[in-house]
Amino acid sequence: MSDSTRIYSQHISKQFNDELEKLRADFAQMGELVTRQTGDAVTSLLTQDATLAQSVLDLDRQTNEKERLIDQDCTQIIALRQPAAIDLRLIISISRAVVDLERIGDEASRVAKQTLDLVQCDSGTKGLKEIRHTGELVVEMLNLALKAFHTGDTELAYKVVKFDLDVDQEYQSAMRSLITFMMEDSRAITNVLKAIWVLRSLERIGDHASNLAEQLIYQVSGTDVRHMENREIKEIVRD
Amino acid sequence: MSDSTRIYSQHISKQFNDELEKLRADFAQMGELVTRQTGDAVTSLLTQDATLAQSVLDLDRQTNEKERLIDQDCTQIIALRQPAAIDLRLIISISRAVVDLERIGDEASRVAKQTLDLVQCDSGTKGLKEIRHTGELVVEMLNLALKAFHTGDTELAYKVVKFDLDVDQEYQSAMRSLITFMMEDSRAITNVLKAIWVLRSLERIGDHASNLAEQLIYQVSGTDVRHMENREIKEIVRD
Repeated sequence: MSDSTRIYSQHISKQFNDELEKLRADFAQMGELVTRQTGDAVTSLLTQDATLAQSVLDLDRQTNEKERLIDQDCTQIIALRQPAAIDLRLIISISRAVVDLERIGDEASRVAKQTLDLVQCDSGTKGLKEIRHTGELVVEMLNLALKAFHTGDTELAYKVVKFDLDVDQEYQSAMRSLITFMMEDSRAITNVLKAIWVLRSLERIGDHASNLAEQLIYQVSGTDVRHMENREIKEIVRD
Repeated sequence: MSDSTRIYSQHISKQFNDELEKLRADFAQMGELVTRQTGDAVTSLLTQDATLAQSVLDLDRQTNEKERLIDQDCTQIIALRQPAAIDLRLIISISRAVVDLERIGDEASRVAKQTLDLVQCDSGTKGLKEIRHTGELVVEMLNLALKAFHTGDTELAYKVVKFDLDVDQEYQSAMRSLITFMMEDSRAITNVLKAIWVLRSLERIGDHASNLAEQLIYQVSGTDVRHMENREIKEIVRD
């Protein structure tokens, strides 16, 4: 038995254990899907690769279908198994976290659409360099959030929540550069705006990754840490 | 007994009925809170009223706390009452819909922050007239979505889903005007960008209102209609 399966309580019913393990595996798979969407969307933009951008949009159908299936399984397990305590928290946290995963997929798709738009107009890449770093940070943050979720590591989850501050800082700095570009050259406005939309999407992905981390902390500790200050979350993680 | 209480099945346990009714009442209250936040945020912007904008931000604490309490009640009812069928769908749909309500409150707060920023800089109201209509549409859409949720009216919910197309059209038209303003006068860029952020927030609120309507259709019909085409949703609502 792997370490990860010990996160929920052990049941006499092997079938119930299997159902929870399948739920966790499906969630991990959906996490991989949206991480790939996000990474590919950023790469497609930076390399102006329309084929890669299209593949991000195609993947979104899989992401949406996965969300539907996981939600269906959550409801069915609740109805048939009447789980309590940690098992119920596992299911509830997964059913909330898939909403964030699905929206990460949406934001990645928005980025991919901007790529297709830019390639089609052949309108240059002004402003794209500025968003590269935010893109890298967000993909890293998402990876860490999913790792925390998979391993039940609340300390790592807390790091992810703090990480969001770095992303916001990088976002602000990139945004300032992009606004300056627009002021310096009004012909670049339409193009730079596309970079701005991408930057906003990346920031949102960071927010969703932070939500994932908060859900993991709820799953393990039983405390709902949304809307808490970081120092309060720190206390809960340490307990 | 009011009509609304007939949406879920009748139980021998009066207490269980009361718990579900309280859940529905709390959800309706949270809905009123975020509708007020949204309406006040738009008004504060159009009238440059900093006091009203501040009250939107203050209300957000209540919205967040309400989300926490409703989620807690949902989990507790599931754990203690082991609901099935329509009751479970009521609880699941509410627990998903509060996420949308909370994010509507966030977006309204973003709008209010732009108001405070604009008033503080005393930097004029270029572009604000252009977003008025989108604001009005979004508040109307939100009202309809919550009414559908409250009355269990899936036909109305379907209207809300279609309504989102009108909001998107209005959004596109306003966005084109705002981009033109920026191109015509580069000194207005910083200011017009604020109007653009507001417009994006309003569009997001429309998306969340549409999600609320989809959750109500799930609650009543048992079919998860997210990611479905409108014509497919129409069939389900008619059945």
